[in-house]
Formats: sequence, C-alpha cells, structure tokens
Amino acid sequence: MSDLETKCVNTIRLLSADMVRAANSGHPGAPMGCAPMAQILYGKEMNYNAKNSSWINRDRFVLSNGHACALLYSTLHLAGYDLSLDDLKSFRQLDSKCPGHPENFLTDGVEVTTGPLGQGFCNAVGLAMAEAHLGATYNKPGFNLIDHYTYVLMGDGCNQEGVASEAASLAGHLKLGKLIVLYDDNLIQIDGETNLAFTEDVLKRYEAYGFHTQSVDNGDSDYSALSRAIEVAKSVTDKPSLIKVRTTIGFGSKDQGLEKTHGSPLQHDDIANVKSKFGFSPEEKFQVPQEVRGFWESRIQEGERKNQEWNDLFAKYKQEHPQLAAEFERRIQNRLPEGWEKNLPTFPADEKVTATRKFSNYVINAVADVLPELIGGSADLTPSNLTQWKSAKEFQHESSGLGNYAGRYIRYGVREHGMFAVNNGIAAYGAGFIPFGATFLNFISYALGATRLTSLSLLQGIAVMTHDSIGLGEDGPTHQPIETLATLRATPNSLTFRPADGHEVAAAYYAGITNRHKFTVISLSRQEVPMIPSSSLEKALKGAYVAYESSKDTPDVIITATGTEVAIAADARKILEEQGLGVRVVSFPCFQLFEEQSIEYKESVFLPGTPVVSVEALTTFGWERYSHCSLGMTTFGCSAPYKQVYAKFELVPEKVAEKAQKVIAYYKDNGLNVPNLLRRPNFDYVAHGFH
Amino acid sequence: MSDLETKCVNTIRLLSADMVRAANSGHPGAPMGCAPMAQILYGKEMNYNAKNSSWINRDRFVLSNGHACALLYSTLHLAGYDLSLDDLKSFRQLDSKCPGHPENFLTDGVEVTTGPLGQGFCNAVGLAMAEAHLGATYNKPGFNLIDHYTYVLMGDGCNQEGVASEAASLAGHLKLGKLIVLYDDNLIQIDGETNLAFTEDVLKRYEAYGFHTQSVDNGDSDYSALSRAIEVAKSVTDKPSLIKVRTTIGFGSKDQGLEKTHGSPLQHDDIANVKSKFGFSPEEKFQVPQEVRGFWESRIQEGERKNQEWNDLFAKYKQEHPQLAAEFERRIQNRLPEGWEKNLPTFPADEKVTATRKFSNYVINAVADVLPELIGGSADLTPSNLTQWKSAKEFQHESSGLGNYAGRYIRYGVREHGMFAVNNGIAAYGAGFIPFGATFLNFISYALGATRLTSLSLLQGIAVMTHDSIGLGEDGPTHQPIETLATLRATPNSLTFRPADGHEVAAAYYAGITNRHKFTVISLSRQEVPMIPSSSLEKALKGAYVAYESSKDTPDVIITATGTEVAIAADARKILEEQGLGVRVVSFPCFQLFEEQSIEYKESVFLPGTPVVSVEALTTFGWERYSHCSLGMTTFGCSAPYKQVYAKFELVPEKVAEKAQKVIAYYKDNGLNVPNLLRRPNFDYVAHGFH
Repeated sequence: MSDLETKCVNTIRLLSADMVRAANSGHPGAPMGCAPMAQILYGKEMNYNAKNSSWINRDRFVLSNGHACALLYSTLHLAGYDLSLDDLKSFRQLDSKCPGHPENFLTDGVEVTTGPLGQGFCNAVGLAMAEAHLGATYNKPGFNLIDHYTYVLMGDGCNQEGVASEAASLAGHLKLGKLIVLYDDNLIQIDGETNLAFTEDVLKRYEAYGFHTQSVDNGDSDYSALSRAIEVAKSVTDKPSLIKVRTTIGFGSKDQGLEKTHGSPLQHDDIANVKSKFGFSPEEKFQVPQEVRGFWESRIQEGERKNQEWNDLFAKYKQEHPQLAAEFERRIQNRLPEGWEKNLPTFPADEKVTATRKFSNYVINAVADVLPELIGGSADLTPSNLTQWKSAKEFQHESSGLGNYAGRYIRYGVREHGMFAVNNGIAAYGAGFIPFGATFLNFISYALGATRLTSLSLLQGIAVMTHDSIGLGEDGPTHQPIETLATLRATPNSLTFRPADGHEVAAAYYAGITNRHKFTVISLSRQEVPMIPSSSLEKALKGAYVAYESSKDTPDVIITATGTEVAIAADARKILEEQGLGVRVVSFPCFQLFEEQSIEYKESVFLPGTPVVSVEALTTFGWERYSHCSLGMTTFGCSAPYKQVYAKFELVPEKVAEKAQKVIAYYKDNGLNVPNLLRRPNFDYVAHGFH
Repeated sequence: MSDLETKCVNTIRLLSADMVRAANSGHPGAPMGCAPMAQILYGKEMNYNAKNSSWINRDRFVLSNGHACALLYSTLHLAGYDLSLDDLKSFRQLDSKCPGHPENFLTDGVEVTTGPLGQGFCNAVGLAMAEAHLGATYNKPGFNLIDHYTYVLMGDGCNQEGVASEAASLAGHLKLGKLIVLYDDNLIQIDGETNLAFTEDVLKRYEAYGFHTQSVDNGDSDYSALSRAIEVAKSVTDKPSLIKVRTTIGFGSKDQGLEKTHGSPLQHDDIANVKSKFGFSPEEKFQVPQEVRGFWESRIQEGERKNQEWNDLFAKYKQEHPQLAAEFERRIQNRLPEGWEKNLPTFPADEKVTATRKFSNYVINAVADVLPELIGGSADLTPSNLTQWKSAKEFQHESSGLGNYAGRYIRYGVREHGMFAVNNGIAAYGAGFIPFGATFLNFISYALGATRLTSLSLLQGIAVMTHDSIGLGEDGPTHQPIETLATLRATPNSLTFRPADGHEVAAAYYAGITNRHKFTVISLSRQEVPMIPSSSLEKALKGAYVAYESSKDTPDVIITATGTEVAIAADARKILEEQGLGVRVVSFPCFQLFEEQSIEYKESVFLPGTPVVSVEALTTFGWERYSHCSLGMTTFGCSAPYKQVYAKFELVPEKVAEKAQKVIAYYKDNGLNVPNLLRRPNFDYVAHGFH
C-alpha cells in the first residue's frame, strides 16, 4: 500500500464528502467507506478507456448501492471521463450530470441507472450474461474480441432485496465466472445496525447459489488484500465471485461507523478535520493533489492504449471474419439488419381462430433467426407463454449439457422480477441486444420495480405477457390481471399493446423491436380470436383504427375494444346492426401510439358527436380518456371456464349491445351533447427528448 | 406405515386426480406427490377443529404452491371441514367453493389466498410472527393460550421467488421456532426439470438464513421418516425448520416424475390404472373408502376435544386475568376498542407547516397505545417514514437483546415485497391484527404482488408511503413515483389516500383502521404543508370536499388537488381571485371514497357547468374521470431541490393559475359547454359483497 494510493483513496473520500456537503443532500458514508474499492478497480484492476466510454470490450462496473453515487462521480471524474469538477460541484442540482442516483443516460461512464436497491446487482448479472453470450458468438481462435469482467458493488440493502437473490441464484446456475461482486459489509443500514433485521450468513448463502466467496477484513486500508481477493476472483472461471469487504461507513469522520454518516452531509468542521487528518488542506474544497492527477493521467493513457490494441485486433478480425465482423459492427452501432421486418408474417382474413399468444409464437419464429440480437425466454412458463422458437438454443453453461453461452433462449426460472432486472443489464450492454421476458400479464406486478427502470433508463425491453385477462379462466382471480394495464399505460416512455389479431401482434413486435429506447409490453391471450379482415400492421401502429365500419355514414355508436374483446365488440355490432343501428368498431391496441397521432386522425377514428363505448376485460380505470361508457372490470375476477367468467361480468356480445343501446338512448333521450373527449384544454409538459 | 395410512394417502391422491379430471383443468401432479405430507399433517401432527375452523389456537397450514389446491380441498373435505364431495366435484367451476387457486374467504379451512408463487410462504412467516406475538402478549403461567405451529408446504417455484427469500431471511433472524416448512423437492417445474434454471443448494441457503434443516429422501411412501422429521422440527424451538422432501410428481400415474403431470388432467385410462394399482375401483370417481372415513371421523372428534379443552382453559383464564381475557376476546371477535377514535388528533388552523409524514407520526403516536392490534414498521426507512411511536417496543427474539416477541415494532429490513406479504399473514391470523408497513411510495412497486393479494383476500393492511411525489427532490426519478397512484386507484377493494393536511391524515388512518377487509394506502409527503382551515376528518372521509370556497356564487373554475398540491392550488386561487375570478379549491384525498358518495354530494363539490382543473404531481392518467384539464406528470421526474423540480414541471401556483385561466377561456371563448363528468352512462358491475 503506497502513500500515493492512500492519497488517491482519500481524494475520492473527500471529493465525495465535499459533493454531499455542497448539495446539502446525499450520502457521504458509503463513498468514504468504499473509496478503496473504487480506487483499486478504476486505478488498477479494470480495463476501460475513459476517453471512449462505449468501447465494447471494457470491463463493466455497476454501483448497485446507487445512493453512494458521489463515489462513482468522483472516481469517474478522476479517471478521466467527461465529468468536470464543476459537474461534481453541481451534485443533485437541476440539470446536473450528477443526479442524486446514477442515471445511465445523463453521465459518461455510468453503465446503468441504480438506486432502487437490488437492481444494479441484477443488471450486473445481465451484463455478465451479455458478455458471455457475445464472446461465445463472436470470439474466434486468436480473437478474444469480447473478454472482460463485470464488477458490481452492493451493500446490505441490495442483499436484503429478493430481486437480488433471484439473480444471484441464476448467476450461480449459469456459472458466470467473470462476474465479480464486492459486498460492502459495513454493518449499518438506515434503521441502525444491520443486526436489527439482517443476521443471515451472507457468504454461506452465496456459496449455496454456487458462488466462490472470499472475505476482506479491513476494506478501509488493506488495499493489497482487496487487490489479491480480486485477482483470485478473476482466476476462478467457472463460478461467479463474491468478496465480502468489511468497511467503516463514513471512514475518517468523527461519526465513522455510525448511521449518522449514511444519508446526511457531514458537518463542515468534521470535513475540515478529516481533511487535516488525511493531510489535505482543511479549508479547500474539491481538492485533487497534483500527484493524484498524475496517477490518473497515466491510467488514462493506459486505457487509450488498450482500446487501440483492441481496435487493431478488430481490424484483423474484420479481414479474417468479414461477415461476423459486419454483424458485430452493426450491432455495436445499434442498427437492425436491413429488411428484417420483411420477415414479419401476415395472415389471411380467414385464418383459423388462434390465441394471440400463438400469433406471438409465429412472429417470434419468423424473426428470431434474422435478429441475432433477440435474446430472452420465460420465467418458467415456456409452454404457456409460447416464447420458444423452433431453432432456439439454450443459453446455459456448457457443463450443464443443456446448451452453451451462444444460446439465446434463457431459462429464467420462476423469477419474474429478476428476469426483467437482468434484461435491463443485457439491454445496457451496448451490443444492440433486444432482451425479452415472458410470464402471465398479472405477474408483471412482481417485476414493476425493474420494468419502470427499463422505461426510465431509456433501455429497450420487451415483455411478452400472456393470459392477459379474466379470459385465462379457471386459474382464477389470483392470476387474472385487473389493474395491470392502467399501471403500464401510466408509465412514461413505454408502449403497452393488447393486440386483437395476428397483424396487431406483428405490429406490437415491430414497435418493440424498432423502439430502441422504450419498454414494450405485449399482452396476449389464452383464448382464440379470428383475424380482423381489415387489419394491418400499419393500421395497428397508429394505436387505434377502424376495424369494422358502420353501415351508416354517421354511426349511432362506436364500440372500441382491445385484444380478445374486439371480437366481442364485433359480435355486439352485428346484433345492433341487425336492429338497424349504425355501429363502428375501433380496435385499440396501443394507447400511447394513438396519443402520438394528429387530432385529424384521432377524430377520423372517434367521430365527434358519436358516443364511444369501450370494452376491455380489465380495469375501466383510465378509459374515461376515450370512452363515454367504459365496460370492463371494477372488481377482481373469479375462477371458472372463461366463457362463464365473461358472462358473469357481462362482457358478452348481448350485454355489450344492450348497454351500447342504453348509451345511445342516454344522449338522445336526454337531448344531451356527446362530449368530444379528444379535445380538451390540456397542457402536457414534455421533458427531455426521449421521455 | 400402516395399510390404512396408505389408503388414506391414496384417497387424497385419487380425489385430487378426479377433481382435476372432472374440471378438465388444473394440477394433479403436486397433489399426488404431496398427499403423504397432507395426510401426516392433517391426519396426525396438526391440532385443529374442523367443526370450528376459526379456533384461534389451531395449527395453521399454508399451501404456498397454491396450484396444488386439489390436495388441500380433498384433505379438508376428508378432515371434516365444511366442504362436501359435491364441492370437490365443482372444482374450478363458477361459484364453487373450490376455485382454481385457494381463496381464503371462499373455503372453510383455507387460511390464506395462494397461487402467486412465494406469497404463501411469506404469509406463513407472518402467521408464525402473529402466533409468537399473541403468545408473548396473552400467555400467562399455566395458560398457554396461544401455542401452536405454523406449517407451510412450498415447491420449487416458491423457492425461486425473491419474495420468499426475503421472508426466509427475516424468519431466520426472528428465530421463529414454530414455523415448519415442508419443501416439495420434486425436481420438476413447468419448463421441465428444475436443473434448467435452479441448481442451488436449497438446504444450505436456508441454513445461512438460520433455519434448522432436514431431508426426507422418500416422501412418496416413507411416512414414518416424514413424521419423524416433523417431530424433530417441533423440538427445535429457536430456529424455524425446513424439511426437504423428495417426492415424485404425479405419483402413481404412468407419467409420474414428468412435467406432463404438472398442469393438465391425467388421461381417463391413466386414472383408472392408478386406481387399480392403489386397490380402488377403476371406474368409480370420488371414492372415499369406509375405513378412511372412519379414520377421519376419529380425528374430527379428537379436534373437537382439543378445542373444548382450550375453551375450558380460556374460561379459567378469564377468571384469573379478566382484563386481558376481555381484550383477547375483543380481538378474536375483530372488534376495535370502544372509543379508540377519540384519540385521533385534531389540529388548529394555524398549526405550523408540517410534512404530512410528520402528521402521520402524530397520529400513530396517538393511537398506538390504545390499539394493541396495531403492529408494523418500516422496510428500513424508519427515520424517513416516521413510523416509530414513542412507546414502541421492538418485535425481536429475546436473544437479540433488542426486544422480544411482545413488541409491536417490526424491523422488516430492506424487504418491501416480503414486508407486505408477511403482513398479509399477520392480518389473516384472526386476532384482529392491523398490520402496517412503510417505505417510499415509489417502492410499493416492488411489493404489488403482495398488496394486490391484501385487497383480493379481503384482508386488512395499511401502507404508510412517504416521499410521495417529485417533491422528494434530490433523490431523483428513481425514487419519484409517477404511475403509482394510478395502479393503486385501479386496484379493487382498496383505498388510496393522498392527504393534504393533519385532519386528512387522521381520516386516512381512521379509514385504514376501520376498514377491516381492505387495503389502505396512505401517501405522505416529505415537504411541509399548512392546515386547510376548513378541513375535518368527516369531510376528508367523503373522499373530496370544498377546501377553499370561491368568492363568487358560481365559480369560474374549480381547482382540485391532492396532498401537497392542495397548497399550490390554494395559492393559485389567490392569484386568480385577485384578478376578479371566482375559484373554488377541492381537496381530493381519496378517489374510492368519493365514488361511494351520492350524485347530489358529488355535484355539490364539482358544480356542473364549471370546468375542473386537477393538480397532482404524479401521472395524469385516470384524472379524466374528474377533471377537464389534468395537470401533473407525463414523464419521469428529475433530481434537484424539490422547489426547482416543481418549477421545471410547471406545478407552481403561477403556472397553475395561468393554465386555469386558459381553461376558462377555452370553454368561454369557443362557446363550448363544459361536460358534466360526474354523469356518464356507466354500468359498473359489482360482484360479491366485499369487493
């Protein structure tokens, strides 16, 4: 342990303390405790090029305890990323590059958005899976194009979250030998000492998952022990590694080791004393000693050199493996293969009735082979979700005898939350990955902690959600989603599809695949539906369109529906048309896409002056935006054969027709105007670009 | 292992197979594999009175792998619960007492609603916590009023779910010695063999949590080994127990041991063959041999005798400890203490500005001592959620030195999902418990899998959710809820509060405490708010009320808001009134309660003909039900001091006033009618009683 190393570590500690103090908000304790780990990783162990933070073969680092972000920002600044001292000074201020928790799209060098505990660890598992897959796919003898480590720093909070347990079990199963976890065991959490709630044997638990484990007793100053442990972890190739590092929260502060240092700035005089103790000027803020700058300068050059060596390697690879290299480059540039969409299937109007989950299977089969970036699977519901394509190979460690890392079909196990959190890591990897996960629609409620981060982080992700309503029948209300679509539709930067036929399913996948920075949910049915004769991918991509036209120029009523309820609406239309009424049916696969259309288009679909009845076998909440009368669920469902469930809740053609008639009468008999719901005095604020 | 015992086990197996076959839907595999465990528990190890299923000192049994419910129903039928053979025959049919997954309120003897994997295990942890607490509170020397075991059967799926990991870690920490877990290790899950995704060492993991563990190698027929293991588990008093039981899925079927038997009925001829093999008539369905009936008859009598002994004990207890006995009886009868609500605080109109989370702390302090049934805590955010009351004692194992089981303040750790799942078990215990859990509002998204089951199961539960908007400021968008309130408002059988001042907070608690079969969310602020001079508990309980009246008889605009935005609306009103406009401000703490009001009341609040502008610093989704213009969030938030965040998203008085003026002009200048949003041609279907 050199004096310079100590000075570097203390520079990180003090920059972090100064940042939190300047913001008068934030978490100094963990950065001061974990600074040695950051120093050893960025200062010694990791390969990266700070001047090209998207170099694909860089080692990845994830700060799972995202509240410790002052640590990350100060280290990234020193390491030469595009983050100035002024940026550090604006910590937690409006429009800063240093927000209160790391956001991948705001800050150079931040791999993933963290803060919600447990997520970063799972992202790291996903990054390590992506590395393993990409290496297995593109490496060739003499060309280890992809060959790097994924490091993650996690705290006690992350280790208490179930989502991290899920991903840890999966990581152990997959034998992700290049995943190295540093566990900051500082014995403190917000309520006080960890023994208030957390007395398990963490190392033993990780051993049970199949991890290699080590302990470092003095993570505050025993840099060589830390470094040795990381070297050992690197040498273990068939197991992920966890290194438990005992640190002192708020190291240096008069309150070190206490919860007080966790989430509030240190007092000014405390910081001054720490600075004196560390041999820094007690008065000066944001100090970076010259020799520390010098140390990092040489690291920056080393990183640029390594990147250049890799570039040279890739140039040779390009000559020897031109086709693979072209595909690799395409993916790195986040471009889809030219003309991939031509593979999307179309269906004849007389296609036999088919469950939309089955249409989904057709689409996956049609595109999987032309989209090598598509990777995913199901949370142990493959035969129900129908997500496996014919040529799919298992993503497994080869010792399992079941597949290898070049496979693209992931067996997530019954781990919905872990699945989507891991997928966020895969999406964040930077090689154009399009990860998808599948379960029953209802069980996305287990995983919203992860999926909202897909949206927030501008990552791509597809959720294949089957059994999307009371129409799943016998499994009953525990499995029947009600509130779920309202949640998803209310989530910014996401697309929520509930397609009604094969073309709408294809459109949902088209949107999910081409929207590289959005989360796309595709809700799919267990029940069978006919094709809508007039449907097309293009129409579906407008969000809503006229599926069945009225026999009258001005319809008496418009029935709009999603998914399996479009067929019910169509049958209700028949009943009403036979009674001489004009009824238009609007299929409405995606709210968010419809909202992007022009008012002219919107009013060509929902004609002003005509009442709209909506039918969707989930919550009616939120439908007031489009319909004058919302038919759907206001209670939980029940267990019975699905037709009986639909009948019980009066979501059958006869009842829909009857209620539509009442709606017509409601306005006509009372001489009431039908309000135009599309024109409102609204002032939606739209923030930065993507969101 | 007696012949009779075998016959009993096979009766359960065959009843289960017949049920699934008759329904042509369901899961025969696990029931046929787990029948020996059910037989040994209900036939030998457990204390219960089938003729009085609410006997408070019964052993509890939870089927965490709820899809195996045919096992539970057939066993409950045999054991003498109010469940006939005809009920079994109606498995998975409309209005059956035997729904596709167990629902606690539909079926005699079913303790909790299970099916969503992992939840039942957590509920069992909650039941064991409730038992420990109740025993510690009411038992006296010579009077072990509460002294029983909690058993749970879980499968591989439950063990893969992170929520179960969270509760297991907590159970180990709390040393719940009377929790006995049977883990059905049948090596099969839906995707195929468990080794596709799940190769961890489960016993070792539970040892790491602090469990005592055992294995039974032949759970198909080695009844004595099973029984011995359970006896050993009972004798371990300072650790929860897990017994791994190797079973054969679909035992007896020609496809036994295969995934095929998991989720589809066995073929008719297969069942006939199994029946022959087991010495039953191959043709007859739903057979219960006479000697099997005889066995259970004597068990029924034994149960009645044990209940009677307990009744006698309680009669003596009543004499010796009349006050405790009265409280105990009151709780068993689910009655609140007379006059408890008189303790709810009121606040003067000039109370200094206070964060609503702080008002919440006042209320908790005011009622905790008079409501011994109130139990709960925070997922490691106590100093932020302000949930600890002054006299609170820790719920901890006494060996921790931190508290004991008589304490009521629970340290859940950073385990949001586990917290609410455990609380469901506490609520289901049957002693009037009112469990509450706390975290930041945004992180209820980790826990919705559990909280929707609170609502669905008609259980009581309170969620104390602080930091309820972008108003949390610096922590940034990862912590700022957006879609969250839409989710909660769309969930049936729940109450979602966002109170604006002290009286509204008191009202939220009043509703949460008095609604014994609902889930209540109380969203609370970090920012400070003034009292609304006209507010009261009674007004708040109407869901919405006039907070600030217009100076004109007919206001030009109504601004409605929730929580911290009511103060913003009030300031916007001032601006507009100074310009000569008439502005009413409606505080809207709870959608669901407002929806229960008469149309007359509703129209006295939102005057027909007057446009309504809503202000809420979360998603605007769903506000179209009440407002003509919805101000709020359509994107994620950002990290900055909260006033700057509000300014960025234009949720400040000046901007609200400006937009309200535009709304007035929109209708006036265009000569448009203001639609009456309260009167719509709606036909909400309302299902069974509570929902």
